[in-house]
Amino acid sequence: MTYLRNCWYMAGWSDDLPATGGLARTLLDEPVYFYRDEAGVAHALFDRCPHRFAPLSKGWVEDGAAVCAYHGLAFNGEGRCVRNPHGPVTRALDVRAYPVAEAYRALWIWPGDPALADPALIRDLDFLAAAPDTAFNKGYIRGTGHYQLFVDNILDLSHTDFLHPDTLGGGSITRTPGEVEERPDGIIAMSWRPMNEVPIPLALGRLPPGVDRVDSWTEVEWSAPGVIKLVAGAVPTGAPREQGGNSINVHIFTPETASTSHYFFASTRDFRLDDAALNEETRRTRQHIFETEDEPMIAAQQERIGDADFWSLRPALLKIDKGAVLVRRRMDALIAAETEAA
Amino acid sequence: MTYLRNCWYMAGWSDDLPATGGLARTLLDEPVYFYRDEAGVAHALFDRCPHRFAPLSKGWVEDGAAVCAYHGLAFNGEGRCVRNPHGPVTRALDVRAYPVAEAYRALWIWPGDPALADPALIRDLDFLAAAPDTAFNKGYIRGTGHYQLFVDNILDLSHTDFLHPDTLGGGSITRTPGEVEERPDGIIAMSWRPMNEVPIPLALGRLPPGVDRVDSWTEVEWSAPGVIKLVAGAVPTGAPREQGGNSINVHIFTPETASTSHYFFASTRDFRLDDAALNEETRRTRQHIFETEDEPMIAAQQERIGDADFWSLRPALLKIDKGAVLVRRRMDALIAAETEAA
Amino acid sequence: MTYLRNCWYMAGWSDDLPATGGLARTLLDEPVYFYRDEAGVAHALFDRCPHRFAPLSKGWVEDGAAVCAYHGLAFNGEGRCVRNPHGPVTRALDVRAYPVAEAYRALWIWPGDPALADPALIRDLDFLAAAPDTAFNKGYIRGTGHYQLFVDNILDLSHTDFLHPDTLGGGSITRTPGEVEERPDGIIAMSWRPMNEVPIPLALGRLPPGVDRVDSWTEVEWSAPGVIKLVAGAVPTGAPREQGGNSINVHIFTPETASTSHYFFASTRDFRLDDAALNEETRRTRQHIFETEDEPMIAAQQERIGDADFWSLRPALLKIDKGAVLVRRRMDALIAAETEAA
Ligand code: FES
Ligand code: FES
Ligand code: FES
Repeated sequence: MTYLRNCWYMAGWSDDLPATGGLARTLLDEPVYFYRDEAGVAHALFDRCPHRFAPLSKGWVEDGAAVCAYHGLAFNGEGRCVRNPHGPVTRALDVRAYPVAEAYRALWIWPGDPALADPALIRDLDFLAAAPDTAFNKGYIRGTGHYQLFVDNILDLSHTDFLHPDTLGGGSITRTPGEVEERPDGIIAMSWRPMNEVPIPLALGRLPPGVDRVDSWTEVEWSAPGVIKLVAGAVPTGAPREQGGNSINVHIFTPETASTSHYFFASTRDFRLDDAALNEETRRTRQHIFETEDEPMIAAQQERIGDADFWSLRPALLKIDKGAVLVRRRMDALIAAETEAA
Repeated sequence: MTYLRNCWYMAGWSDDLPATGGLARTLLDEPVYFYRDEAGVAHALFDRCPHRFAPLSKGWVEDGAAVCAYHGLAFNGEGRCVRNPHGPVTRALDVRAYPVAEAYRALWIWPGDPALADPALIRDLDFLAAAPDTAFNKGYIRGTGHYQLFVDNILDLSHTDFLHPDTLGGGSITRTPGEVEERPDGIIAMSWRPMNEVPIPLALGRLPPGVDRVDSWTEVEWSAPGVIKLVAGAVPTGAPREQGGNSINVHIFTPETASTSHYFFASTRDFRLDDAALNEETRRTRQHIFETEDEPMIAAQQERIGDADFWSLRPALLKIDKGAVLVRRRMDALIAAETEAA
Repeated sequence: MTYLRNCWYMAGWSDDLPATGGLARTLLDEPVYFYRDEAGVAHALFDRCPHRFAPLSKGWVEDGAAVCAYHGLAFNGEGRCVRNPHGPVTRALDVRAYPVAEAYRALWIWPGDPALADPALIRDLDFLAAAPDTAFNKGYIRGTGHYQLFVDNILDLSHTDFLHPDTLGGGSITRTPGEVEERPDGIIAMSWRPMNEVPIPLALGRLPPGVDRVDSWTEVEWSAPGVIKLVAGAVPTGAPREQGGNSINVHIFTPETASTSHYFFASTRDFRLDDAALNEETRRTRQHIFETEDEPMIAAQQERIGDADFWSLRPALLKIDKGAVLVRRRMDALIAAETEAA
């Protein structure tokens, strides 16, 4: 499968990669071995020894180098062979290394040309790093489904009204046309601003007593390859937005294979910052909903799509698809440009 | 895989499809969603929403229409989109519907041209509907094996002497040449009439004391695509057939995929009509034999055949194959005619 | 996948095939049914009935013939149909038979031209037969991985220093260049003779108190298709080799499919011949190491290689690969010669 290569993909949460022990994860159909050296710096190597193709992830780390457990070749974080117990070290023994960066509590990998791997190109998600631990929660799902199906799911939030009627959906997103905006910085944004609407079920308990109508906002900002920021909040109808708190979230998707994805999500907020119980409740609720409602639906879509190309099945287009279709076209164009350049 | 399309396939027993809740079943490699409207009428839709390909079987029924659980499109029993919460309803939002009929306690589906779907073409199995509940029992197996292997199994009953020596086989079918007949109405019939033979083990307990020789009959009538009626009975040698009761059965096979099949079977009789215990005993015995002896053998054949075409493996032909080979040739001709016409 | 066909492959240990009951095993991608006749002689038939392709292994043996459980055709050990309950026996009903031999406590099969199947071509492993039961132990693993990966594992024993550091490896093999020899009789031999080296961990308990340096030898002799004899021993440094006992072993690999293998191993010795406890301890240790360390590593290599051709991935060559590469080239040449001749 053809992926966009010259961009940063989220590979994991920083704490998915412990100080010792490493992490084996398949990304863009490639097995990757992550490990930390003694200084704690993360490295990523193609998880296949150049000798006899043993996974490096079956080995261990010694002097900052990944040691193959089969015959002991050792590779540093740049993929250079630094030890051959059986003869001279030559460049033929090097393994492919990937540029890695650590930012915003996450690990990022650049599967394309290393010369282009500028960490400044990582999407700015500083609010994740800045949030206190009591106002930051996160989760991970290894899900079935092409990553673009997961992206669709967030860009088309009307699904909440049908798939999550008891929690996230109350009908207001469906009743409110979403605005789409293509920004010069590469972001494709969608926003919904339901006015004087019923609040979503999850919000009910948190509103002041007697309030059953709200003005709310949901704002989604996508950037390639699949990094989405989502801000949502509500105030009693007529109140100024400043009075309402914001839930500030990310949904980040990285392809594992053509039909499976890594789904990373996190939630912060700008209110009740030290409420650890609310934080844990939010974490649990989100993990539960995404795991038991979204992922199974996307896995079911994938099963029906099978190996077919999405467009070849001629999906019926609805107005709600505008954002998702823009994103799919953007990704297709980026991939085509990269393929041509190559 | 190429299937005969312009014909009725049994899709399930009527009670496989409850008043609410629907039924998802793959038939001829296609996922189908069956549901009943408020009047209890059964409908069948291609189980893939035209929007983003979610299975309709993950949704629910509202006002007689199947609602997609992802973004709420609703489709009536003819596949017409009758609700789009996100904009105008257009014909581009329709989904494929299949003609469905309910007859003889079973659901039937027509995967071909709907204009040709005449319920009068369903094989007459009125004896199933007419039987009292105490003389009707049925079962279902989702089995591994091309449906034609399952059809072979019934058209070549000499297998009972080797595969079911403790129950259905006593050697008499093998010792008695079967008669084959091609009838003008499309039925291919086989019959065996062993005279003065040992009874099959299952019959032993039901014969009058002292009787150890019987005249018996086994009559099989196949029609496309895989609907088989089987009548069997026995009398003490020399007695007139009228004195013997008949076990009257169906074995109906519908392809799920190229290598898996739906096996529906039922048994009625024209004696001891109100004997509920005998009825239950018959049901249990048949389910047990088909599940533990026939299906595993057919699954093992399928494994040995793999993806190969049956004829390409050049099966050795025995006299007992006459009926099964006629049926295979008939099916090949019907499929070829349909393919040419298309 | 293309295999060398005109040679003897080990198909099992003799006691894998009981007096009654038979054995179904896939070899070189072909399902084979082994059974013994009344005289105990082993036979091997293609495990697929020529009639409707039921596995013969689902049947039984009668009068020295394998009876198909579906419709009762029976085949003798030469594959000749000897009974057709439904009509005349013809040569069209024969099934393929494989030459089988039993030698050195093992079953051998010849998948090539039967006219060439001379039992004298079986590799001489008389030491297996000659060993008393208290100095013979064996095992079997059905492993994931192309058989050549398993062969590599034995021809490149430096892996013991990294994969088995607590048992078989002490670093001495890695520190000692191996000698390779191509012999006129088709054997490719490797040997290591570490002098004044640390003993391997497993040997420590068996050396005289105070001895912490040994002279040792490990000698490996491969012959096609994958039969390896391995002799190893050690003496306190400076002592004559005659004072040391030899552990005399086989590692025999037979392809099951392109990516799975049968791994047969056995161990004998020329010291403490009646020590049944040592024998059992050796058996258990070897089974444990091969099953929990070697096979998982080879399975992991196979997963990384996938369907690719080994050489197409351009493995980096180390000095330790000399023997394994010679063997791979020899096998390629033998297969090419056979393919051309055909
Ligand atoms: S496979 Fe890694 S060192 Fe041999
Ligand atoms: S997938 Fe069915 S309505 Fe969107
Ligand atoms: S399949 Fe073996 S006798 Fe019919």
